[in-house]
Amino acid sequence: MESWVDSEPSGFSLSNLPLGIFSTELLSPRIGVAIGKYVLDFKSFVMEGLLAHLNIDWSQVDFATLNDYAALGRSRHRTIRKFLQELLISDTRYGSLLRDHPQRRQSLLVLRASATMHLPMRVGDYTDFFVGINHARNCNKLFRGDATLAASYTEQPIGYHGRASSVVISGTPVRRPVGQFNLDGQVFFGPTRKMDFEVEFAAFISKPNTLGEPIGVEAAEEHIFGYVILNDWSSRDIQQREAFPLGPFNAKNFGTTISPWVIQPDALIPYKTKPISTGSELPKYLVERSSNSVHDIVVDVTIKRGSQDFQLSKCNFKNVIFSFPQMIAHHTAGGCPLQTGDLIATGTVSGETVDTLGCLLEITKNGMEPYQIFNNDTGSTLEMGWLHDGDCIEFHGYAGDSSDPEHISFGSCTGLILPSLVTSLEKL
Amino acid sequence: MESWVDSEPSGFSLSNLPLGIFSTELLSPRIGVAIGKYVLDFKSFVMEGLLAHLNIDWSQVDFATLNDYAALGRSRHRTIRKFLQELLISDTRYGSLLRDHPQRRQSLLVLRASATMHLPMRVGDYTDFFVGINHARNCNKLFRGDATLAASYTEQPIGYHGRASSVVISGTPVRRPVGQFNLDGQVFFGPTRKMDFEVEFAAFISKPNTLGEPIGVEAAEEHIFGYVILNDWSSRDIQQREAFPLGPFNAKNFGTTISPWVIQPDALIPYKTKPISTGSELPKYLVERSSNSVHDIVVDVTIKRGSQDFQLSKCNFKNVIFSFPQMIAHHTAGGCPLQTGDLIATGTVSGETVDTLGCLLEITKNGMEPYQIFNNDTGSTLEMGWLHDGDCIEFHGYAGDSSDPEHISFGSCTGLILPSLVTSLEKL
Repeated sequence: MESWVDSEPSGFSLSNLPLGIFSTELLSPRIGVAIGKYVLDFKSFVMEGLLAHLNIDWSQVDFATLNDYAALGRSRHRTIRKFLQELLISDTRYGSLLRDHPQRRQSLLVLRASATMHLPMRVGDYTDFFVGINHARNCNKLFRGDATLAASYTEQPIGYHGRASSVVISGTPVRRPVGQFNLDGQVFFGPTRKMDFEVEFAAFISKPNTLGEPIGVEAAEEHIFGYVILNDWSSRDIQQREAFPLGPFNAKNFGTTISPWVIQPDALIPYKTKPISTGSELPKYLVERSSNSVHDIVVDVTIKRGSQDFQLSKCNFKNVIFSFPQMIAHHTAGGCPLQTGDLIATGTVSGETVDTLGCLLEITKNGMEPYQIFNNDTGSTLEMGWLHDGDCIEFHGYAGDSSDPEHISFGSCTGLILPSLVTSLEKL
Repeated sequence: MESWVDSEPSGFSLSNLPLGIFSTELLSPRIGVAIGKYVLDFKSFVMEGLLAHLNIDWSQVDFATLNDYAALGRSRHRTIRKFLQELLISDTRYGSLLRDHPQRRQSLLVLRASATMHLPMRVGDYTDFFVGINHARNCNKLFRGDATLAASYTEQPIGYHGRASSVVISGTPVRRPVGQFNLDGQVFFGPTRKMDFEVEFAAFISKPNTLGEPIGVEAAEEHIFGYVILNDWSSRDIQQREAFPLGPFNAKNFGTTISPWVIQPDALIPYKTKPISTGSELPKYLVERSSNSVHDIVVDVTIKRGSQDFQLSKCNFKNVIFSFPQMIAHHTAGGCPLQTGDLIATGTVSGETVDTLGCLLEITKNGMEPYQIFNNDTGSTLEMGWLHDGDCIEFHGYAGDSSDPEHISFGSCTGLILPSLVTSLEKL
């Protein structure tokens, strides 16, 4: 499926067509569709009447976030995506609408490099799960000396409520948090000593459910608007002091970064695969008809320290024991209402080897074993412990072979660590 | 301070003047101010130009929730409240504006009994703390056999992120949640067997802070818009199975009820008192200049079962170890942004005796010791265990002597338990 717009192997071919919110010097923040090196200005595209044949009341749609668009529902999203593919394909039968209309091409296609991306949705609630089983095992081993998982972990997707207000778009700097932690047997208040990232996969909700009315596991996929990759920045020392018995709080509410392009579910159908089986019998509300319910998506994690880049890890989102439909079915089983724009994440997803782990807690064994990374190009070595101020962490996510023009790119999810506003360490 | 509107000892005198969102058969949901048996239609009041002298751009204010109003800031709230007191006082010098203007009196004052109340604010994030020390001690004793608290509990306000989408207004029925729990050594999926309420005090945020920029403890009170009472409905068996290590999730996200009137901070100044001292040295960011930083507010908890009412408990919000300013300073210490409309609650607040406890978990010792309640009027006794379907729990909150016309009423926070949609019990 080659497009007349651009046929670079960028991961943003006609097979992808993700949605995001962009602005330029001239354009206010608005919905755009990525195609090759360009963004289609979807708001102006609609205003020009190019989707008039779909009989959608666009006057009710606020184009400054994707919330109203998401609420149009999956079948309309499918119809629009299909029409855009037919319009943007090289031998389109709709050439006169855009390809052969120089003025519209000029105004509706914006270079992605000149676009500033914004948070794609107004996030209602943010939920973080814990379905990466290797991560769970490694945490158990580090903190309790035993990797064995409780039955309650494999029989239901364990999750907690995260902080919606601190979800930010890729590129937003993240400030090192200040908090209380133990150090050498004493308690201090000051900048965290254990700053970490977490590689996660996340889904945005389109269709809401009513308080008290669960979403069945087979219906759940129709409630998913699309997917992003997510970095749930964490402070491990603050977390260790605060997390019992109510879970992580200030250790994670200072910033959660997401990638800017919302990948549509249909683009990821070819990359569906089986979750990791634990052998546990599941209650009916979690049993799926299809076993291909999770995604084979790779995330390359790079750290830029000083002027050098190092490849830190290569994660894969198939390393989970529950799918998003299972997480949604569980989340709503008791009646919790999901709303358009809610964000649901997997928790850290790690592989089994050290070069496939999703956070420094695991990579460095809670800071006890620094990890050596070699840069082939420069010949230098990085001894990796916790994150430093000035470090930039970049996730690059994709499904398929990155040399295949039809592969699906998630773009990147990056954040630079800023120093704390407080620099002193106060002993309690 | 007697009002010409109404001088019943209702708790809604000129000393109170709380704000809420009401509607009637004729009026769409809008901001109202409670005065005696009436609600002042604040939206129409503003539209009639009666606050024109304040030079506020009301065209930017959406009157359907209190969010925009809250964002106007504390000094404007004070000015408006003071003007309303001067307007509504018996010997007002502004008589011609409303008191002696029969047409306006007729249209702007609505009987509270004919008003339907709505969620006062669009809740961004909901945070639940755990600052009720008697509750924390009792939980420790029940689950670990020892009431002793960890230093990490007394040296920082422990909290977790709750679910904003399931916050509902008083009077909304709450459906018994379905979930996984242990019963006699087996795991089941079905309606919870341990349905509970929790008596909590809560604050709404007015002024936001920026990501990465903490709110100092002395500045924190200026970020509080007002207060409500809150019932954080809980399922104790679901909670016990899911809460390790990430905290409560489905055990609490099926419904959280709040009272409809937002009590302004100035109305509660006479009821400030000292928190419970634990003797712990606090880090500087939690040290307050004034020790009168919490509130002496009583909550009567009543259960209606069948046709009978029983007084279940009498709680007091002074039984906490941290104030809202301390909770806010801690919440933002690491940089977490609070937004206008965020809701922050204390967690369950219990007294020291069985008739002052804030939840059935404590009152019945996790269901092991049913609690006898006697109804003086009818002579009947209720053996109280967990909540039944059809039970109606009512909190009635107030500051001051309820026979004093100037006392401050929070109104009530009520919820009826509906049966689960699923009635079967599935064994895993």
